[in-house]
Amino acid sequence: MIDQLIDRIIEKGAPIVAGLDPRLEYLPQSLLDKHFERGINLEAAAQAILDFNIEILNNIHDLIPAVKLQIAYYEMYGVYGLETFMETANYAKSKGLIVIADVKRNDIGSTAEAYSNAYIGYTLLQQQQAQAFPVDMITVNPYLGTDGIKPFVDNCKRNNKGIFVLVKTSNPSSKEIQDLVTADGLKVYEKVAQKVNEWGQDLIGNYGYSSVGAVIGATFPHELSQLRKLMPKVYFLVPGYGAQGAKAEDIMGGFDDRGLGSIINASRSIMCAYRNKPWNTQFRPHEFGLASRAEVLNMKEEIHKALMNKKCNSYKIN
Amino acid sequence: MIDQLIDRIIEKGAPIVAGLDPRLEYLPQSLLDKHFERGINLEAAAQAILDFNIEILNNIHDLIPAVKLQIAYYEMYGVYGLETFMETANYAKSKGLIVIADVKRNDIGSTAEAYSNAYIGYTLLQQQQAQAFPVDMITVNPYLGTDGIKPFVDNCKRNNKGIFVLVKTSNPSSKEIQDLVTADGLKVYEKVAQKVNEWGQDLIGNYGYSSVGAVIGATFPHELSQLRKLMPKVYFLVPGYGAQGAKAEDIMGGFDDRGLGSIINASRSIMCAYRNKPWNTQFRPHEFGLASRAEVLNMKEEIHKALMNKKCNSYKIN
Repeated sequence: MIDQLIDRIIEKGAPIVAGLDPRLEYLPQSLLDKHFERGINLEAAAQAILDFNIEILNNIHDLIPAVKLQIAYYEMYGVYGLETFMETANYAKSKGLIVIADVKRNDIGSTAEAYSNAYIGYTLLQQQQAQAFPVDMITVNPYLGTDGIKPFVDNCKRNNKGIFVLVKTSNPSSKEIQDLVTADGLKVYEKVAQKVNEWGQDLIGNYGYSSVGAVIGATFPHELSQLRKLMPKVYFLVPGYGAQGAKAEDIMGGFDDRGLGSIINASRSIMCAYRNKPWNTQFRPHEFGLASRAEVLNMKEEIHKALMNKKCNSYKIN
Repeated sequence: MIDQLIDRIIEKGAPIVAGLDPRLEYLPQSLLDKHFERGINLEAAAQAILDFNIEILNNIHDLIPAVKLQIAYYEMYGVYGLETFMETANYAKSKGLIVIADVKRNDIGSTAEAYSNAYIGYTLLQQQQAQAFPVDMITVNPYLGTDGIKPFVDNCKRNNKGIFVLVKTSNPSSKEIQDLVTADGLKVYEKVAQKVNEWGQDLIGNYGYSSVGAVIGATFPHELSQLRKLMPKVYFLVPGYGAQGAKAEDIMGGFDDRGLGSIINASRSIMCAYRNKPWNTQFRPHEFGLASRAEVLNMKEEIHKALMNKKCNSYKIN
């Protein structure tokens, strides 16, 4: 799977994944009014979000290799929300996008296997295979150790899928557990990084990267550079760009000499572009899709410039 | 919420939570045949599981204070599975049971809030409140630190709910991250334990326990005793009894002098009782509910005896 992701990154000239984490308050009022006209309920909210997602996808799908769906923002609308999650994922796939589900699942072995089968595998029904929430890649949490991760790695092998393991997350409190210094001088996240190296060693593709990747927050530029060296074969999913405060220069440490090694996620800055400067003066609320497109182009440009300054990009950023 | 849980534990004389983690292969063939007659698909599987759950609940609800639903075993049947999750939770509540959803959710602050609202809070729809998957208590993963936990604690306060934070999990690989020794000599799980003490300090109820609890595996009796001392105000959800190998004497370290402090989870041993010795000779497959009841009574008896030996139970175990 990692080769397919990298192929698309190069093809689109964009090491970017757009996050579709749609809070209801991100939607233009006209879209809300349209759906809530016949009743304010979870079903109507989920339908409004689906419309919002599709309009954004229609406007950005040709610019980027992948989308990331944060499942929490779908679970909060119950089963209707999860239907929207699935329909968004399927629509994105129909537009040629790789779909990363940000689910951060974790459990002991047998239960991790159930989660793994739900997203990147198959549910067995009397010898028949069915798919619950099929996506291409998911995020997972490493706190339970190898036997909680192996069922995900197994499905990566069997079904050509990928995972990103949380290593150093973008939030301020990530230091509390992840930065604890262990007896041998390494921090917990560095110990986790070593495990991720191990977990992915059988899944290394043509570019030298594994389908077992890592989540490293853009808000920690120093750790990003350091982990790039510590995990030379691990692709990074890097959240925290844009609304969380990280800029293009902050994420350069995550790239190798070819301009590969990281895919940068932005969610709020793309979804809410129509409300933010400078796009709010150029686009009206119902043109939110166009504003998202403008913001993606802007983000591509910023990352392009920073990669040029670093003299490390071997692919054309159009 | 913790007071309500403890009240029920005392009332039922059972520090026991039955896990409804229904793998399809746990169901008697007759139940599968009935539902798959018109087509083998996720919807039929989810319906079969709902029937299975309801029959078990009908047979055990009077014996225990709570049930735990492992959501992975519902997610693997897609949106149909999550409908079964909800219907099972609602049915259990209608029978007077406290419902713990084992979801192990975790994310950065704003996303953790979405998860928190989905399970123990409210989803806001234009100033109206809706509920996505309302349950009484959930499990959460601490790897992201305080800002990833606070949204859950906030909902515990606002809505009289409870959480159990993963501290030391029951699986063999839990040692890889959780048992790392930090520079000051404490293990990672002990550092997490200290955090859990902090997170729950404003939520301590009449019995001296907080609505912010911890998950401690029954498979680590030594750590269970040690953590009881380190976390004197934290209630433990203890998985790993029965099928995972832990026996009644292994879990005694989790109890205080009153026989409080822990609620023991068993899943497979209760759900699959009809297939296991000695119940498989006394009950036929379609009597699986009766077998589950017999196994719950047996488990109550075993824990009762062990608590009597420890001379620490102050409530009647009937």
